[in-house]
Amino acid sequence: MYHMVPNNQDWLKTSIMATRGVGRDRKAVTHHLTEAKQGRYHYTIGPYSDPVLYIKPGDIVVIETRDAFEGKIKSEQDRPTDLLHMPFLNPQNGPIIVEGAEKGDALAVYIESMKPRGPNPRGTCCMIPEFGGLTGTYYTATLNDPLPEKVRKINLDEEWVHWSDRVKLPYRPHIGTLSCSPEIDSINSLTPDNHGGNMDLPDMGPGSITYLPVRTEGARLFIGDAHACQGDGEVCGVAVEYPTVTTIKVDLIKGWTIEWPRLEREDFIMAIGSTRPLEDATRIAYRELIRWMVQDHGFDKWDAYMMLSQCGMVRLGNFVDPKYTVGAAIRKKYLSR
Amino acid sequence: MYHMVPNNQDWLKTSIMATRGVGRDRKAVTHHLTEAKQGRYHYTIGPYSDPVLYIKPGDIVVIETRDAFEGKIKSEQDRPTDLLHMPFLNPQNGPIIVEGAEKGDALAVYIESMKPRGPNPRGTCCMIPEFGGLTGTYYTATLNDPLPEKVRKINLDEEWVHWSDRVKLPYRPHIGTLSCSPEIDSINSLTPDNHGGNMDLPDMGPGSITYLPVRTEGARLFIGDAHACQGDGEVCGVAVEYPTVTTIKVDLIKGWTIEWPRLEREDFIMAIGSTRPLEDATRIAYRELIRWMVQDHGFDKWDAYMMLSQCGMVRLGNFVDPKYTVGAAIRKKYLSR
Amino acid sequence: MYHMVPNNQDWLKTSIMATRGVGRDRKAVTHHLTEAKQGRYHYTIGPYSDPVLYIKPGDIVVIETRDAFEGKIKSEQDRPTDLLHMPFLNPQNGPIIVEGAEKGDALAVYIESMKPRGPNPRGTCCMIPEFGGLTGTYYTATLNDPLPEKVRKINLDEEWVHWSDRVKLPYRPHIGTLSCSPEIDSINSLTPDNHGGNMDLPDMGPGSITYLPVRTEGARLFIGDAHACQGDGEVCGVAVEYPTVTTIKVDLIKGWTIEWPRLEREDFIMAIGSTRPLEDATRIAYRELIRWMVQDHGFDKWDAYMMLSQCGMVRLGNFVDPKYTVGAAIRKKYLSR
Amino acid sequence: MYHMVPNNQDWLKTSIMATRGVGRDRKAVTHHLTEAKQGRYHYTIGPYSDPVLYIKPGDIVVIETRDAFEGKIKSEQDRPTDLLHMPFLNPQNGPIIVEGAEKGDALAVYIESMKPRGPNPRGTCCMIPEFGGLTGTYYTATLNDPLPEKVRKINLDEEWVHWSDRVKLPYRPHIGTLSCSPEIDSINSLTPDNHGGNMDLPDMGPGSITYLPVRTEGARLFIGDAHACQGDGEVCGVAVEYPTVTTIKVDLIKGWTIEWPRLEREDFIMAIGSTRPLEDATRIAYRELIRWMVQDHGFDKWDAYMMLSQCGMVRLGNFVDPKYTVGAAIRKKYLSR
Repeated sequence: MYHMVPNNQDWLKTSIMATRGVGRDRKAVTHHLTEAKQGRYHYTIGPYSDPVLYIKPGDIVVIETRDAFEGKIKSEQDRPTDLLHMPFLNPQNGPIIVEGAEKGDALAVYIESMKPRGPNPRGTCCMIPEFGGLTGTYYTATLNDPLPEKVRKINLDEEWVHWSDRVKLPYRPHIGTLSCSPEIDSINSLTPDNHGGNMDLPDMGPGSITYLPVRTEGARLFIGDAHACQGDGEVCGVAVEYPTVTTIKVDLIKGWTIEWPRLEREDFIMAIGSTRPLEDATRIAYRELIRWMVQDHGFDKWDAYMMLSQCGMVRLGNFVDPKYTVGAAIRKKYLSR
Repeated sequence: MYHMVPNNQDWLKTSIMATRGVGRDRKAVTHHLTEAKQGRYHYTIGPYSDPVLYIKPGDIVVIETRDAFEGKIKSEQDRPTDLLHMPFLNPQNGPIIVEGAEKGDALAVYIESMKPRGPNPRGTCCMIPEFGGLTGTYYTATLNDPLPEKVRKINLDEEWVHWSDRVKLPYRPHIGTLSCSPEIDSINSLTPDNHGGNMDLPDMGPGSITYLPVRTEGARLFIGDAHACQGDGEVCGVAVEYPTVTTIKVDLIKGWTIEWPRLEREDFIMAIGSTRPLEDATRIAYRELIRWMVQDHGFDKWDAYMMLSQCGMVRLGNFVDPKYTVGAAIRKKYLSR
Repeated sequence: MYHMVPNNQDWLKTSIMATRGVGRDRKAVTHHLTEAKQGRYHYTIGPYSDPVLYIKPGDIVVIETRDAFEGKIKSEQDRPTDLLHMPFLNPQNGPIIVEGAEKGDALAVYIESMKPRGPNPRGTCCMIPEFGGLTGTYYTATLNDPLPEKVRKINLDEEWVHWSDRVKLPYRPHIGTLSCSPEIDSINSLTPDNHGGNMDLPDMGPGSITYLPVRTEGARLFIGDAHACQGDGEVCGVAVEYPTVTTIKVDLIKGWTIEWPRLEREDFIMAIGSTRPLEDATRIAYRELIRWMVQDHGFDKWDAYMMLSQCGMVRLGNFVDPKYTVGAAIRKKYLSR
Repeated sequence: MYHMVPNNQDWLKTSIMATRGVGRDRKAVTHHLTEAKQGRYHYTIGPYSDPVLYIKPGDIVVIETRDAFEGKIKSEQDRPTDLLHMPFLNPQNGPIIVEGAEKGDALAVYIESMKPRGPNPRGTCCMIPEFGGLTGTYYTATLNDPLPEKVRKINLDEEWVHWSDRVKLPYRPHIGTLSCSPEIDSINSLTPDNHGGNMDLPDMGPGSITYLPVRTEGARLFIGDAHACQGDGEVCGVAVEYPTVTTIKVDLIKGWTIEWPRLEREDFIMAIGSTRPLEDATRIAYRELIRWMVQDHGFDKWDAYMMLSQCGMVRLGNFVDPKYTVGAAIRKKYLSR
């Protein structure tokens, strides 16, 4: 489950997207959502912003994402608090309108590739006062002095993230924030919930399909927050944030009403929950996974519950956002009859 | 601290509102926000809806609030799940634009009176599946069968809430949901956070002044969710919900930048925090109270911290909403020099 | 509910203790558990220590309690970390064996009086690194520098706690830690759980009766941790800790099997829950209160649940111990038929 | 990281145990802790029980463990509530006294092998009312009816766990409960904490070394609760519980004072935290891992913090016990200089 590199794409033909997507037999049109076309990036995910692109199910979109700090942190001498101002963080591309999408459907977002963009060092990590997993925060309010501000600028390419003289890490790109619009709420891009949002799941990279609940007409897809790599929990609050050219294929599954985002890869399916405390996020993810096993794979509810107690896999997305994210997964081989 | 009936209004002259509000010397104009004038009620609190009223600091507004179920539950034979559809719950009056309000200010909302409205039984309590403090919920996701649906219709007047043959409870009206708009988010009216929202604090009734952070031009005040009485924690998830005529006086304190809502009554001041888990809501409330004592009352930070350990008062608003609310308070007599 | 001073003792005659205690008609014998008789104080509450006293139901015990730091903090120049060593904190008197007590019974502990002991300043408050509500702790592990160490020595008498030049607080004594032994566990005296333990409820002072589950033969009563006053939540982690002469009357209620501690005062009954997170402590307390209302007062379960949503009272004991404590209460007047 | 099968044992020669254990050059003596020699199994882990075995550092112990239900659940027609009685669950072998172990040392427990014991079906899984991750529980107290009781008896061998006609799972044995004694507490064997206890980490199987803090003379090692396999989080509350012959090698590292248990395998090191809520368990685990990287591997604290945000691995042991367990790990290859 960890940081998988997809071996081949054959499995895609049997994916939910390929078998149930309304655009599965359409010839894909490729759209380009450049910085220029995007114009203003968004810091809130909701039904109140103007669309930047209209696509049809099955289309491909090549997207220029900005890093989570919108490129403002340029050197290790920069101070995050001088440059970053809440809630204007984590800029999102979108909203992209998908033709035919209605409340009660699910949007399928296959991530085809993620390529670094711009001159090196492209990657940024930092410690932001009162933000992160091992510090008092805005919500876990303490009287302690904040941790020091630190900035790391990191060279990276499509093979390695050059963390330090001592350590280089494999390039494992993924999308941190992916969502359709909520029905009436507009939620800042730092917060995940049942619409998706800032989930920070390393599994959500090339070779993955994410299924998102559609709650408004046209789905209104938002995407951003690319990470060149990330550990479980994103403990300091920041991954290796970087700008990309990300290519996605988007399809629409009519009438598949899911309550929380779901994810499919070659060898497992995953349900995703986001809330606090962390046990509740885990509860949501496992309950949704059981519901999925019952509805689509013919399991008895109690059998699924007890069986996941033996073979369920948990990924901690992050425990640093305003809400925490957990994915609960099962290998596909245990689903077959 | 519990369910106080205000003795007299003399203290108001020395309140923060009366001493720092820009409208303190203005002759108040009284506005009427009737059902007709309100038109469509709102289920989300944010910057994207059209104003229904424009007022000046110091003005009075007489508001016709609807109950949290918008009057849909009419008899004890009704089933909540037939009538209530998320997220279309907890209808709010507003937004009311307050002249001169800008980001960084605080809005003061004095509740002058709350009178029941419409024919008896006016009060509604119910048990809604997967909602409440002692049941698995949407976020505390369990596989248990939900609790049964139950509806109670309750006669009430300005003296008593006639709960049952056995028990009558004192009428202790208060506003459950009160907010200015967030800066860019639009938050459903069931969720409290740093903008206010669904706090469910019994202290927020006639005789109280709530101070709300202003984050958009004009403040955009929302109000609703009147309770004829409520216990600490609102344990079943529902108070005695009822429609009212609520009279408030609104003033504006320029440049008083507060991060979370605050409340003042005759004999105490209170800071309010809302998040999960509940200890974090408590942390927020106490940290804000300490900051208040330091900034406005000349306390040393550590002295305030240790002293509140001896005389702080905690009110649990609710632990049933998507976020939980706690008020931390200190008696005014301990603040004087 | 806050810091009540008992008006008169007439209600005691109708208390559960007086009506169901097996010692209710016995002539009480008074025992003295002096420091000398106690000998070694205990830091863990369990079945493995040697009894210091044998009493009969209905007897009175006059106890010399030590403060939570065992008197080691003598001046404001002392440093807690030099003097305090985990887990040797919060010394307990006991175990006291109560004749006839068996698993499945409840012990009743009426606190008759609490008098300060020793020379002034008797009271101690302090800030201990990585301990308290508004700091990273041993369990809420952060990387922040700890808060500074601070010691306050406080003069106090049976009327006032002289906190500072600016503030004096009413003397509101109560017992912080009260327990019978668990069945097989031995639990350090800093941790509350279903046996009682370090609950830190201001209600547990003179005029209160606490009912504790008996889980071993003889009940094995432990008591200690007197506070001259304490705010809700004990936010800095320490109350005004002081040595006392505390007089209690102990009775035994055969066959009253309670799962968590309960408390009775003149005008309310309270169920007590201790765990983390804080919402779970609140859930326990409210569920136990509902069970109590159903079993002993003839309420329908759902009626009790919905009614407590209108009139339940919540006391936050502390949110600083290894487990947090909440009391959920209802006024007796709402229990009568 | 998931369910690894150790490839070879060469790495053991460079393990902390092999390089720092005082028994590393001793010729191991092999001891047999049979059911008969154990006699009474223990349900509480503490300093108050009589030793069953005395060993020297470097010795090997072959242990007959009982399943978590002590073999009481024999068929799928059995009802757990008829047979299981709290707190008499999860029987432990021990205490084993290790010569020379003193407070401040660490005990190393290498698990060499785990073999199933007794006639098939050896494995037991069940649903116990008010126990598990997706149900109201003793601590997450709800009013919902409990889930149904269910028992599964499962054939298993050293290759497969035959879960159902549809699914067979790889045999991935591990020890659920492993501890040295706390200093003065005696903790029931269902609860993990800083002594170890009921951690339920699938990583703690053959090929792993667990390092436990020693807090009493002789260390007093307890072991039990074997699982033939387990998913992350042990979501229904029960793994495939079974009796084993487990062979361990025990060594002693003098003066290595660790606050929480740690684990080493061929390719990673892991720090383990146990508490509630789950984010606090994660905080503990990550903080301990950072401390380990700083103290033993020369990392700068902030570099370690930010780097784990990119490559840390989190294992959810369980979120069903009275306290939840998380392991935070880093691959050894990132530790080398």
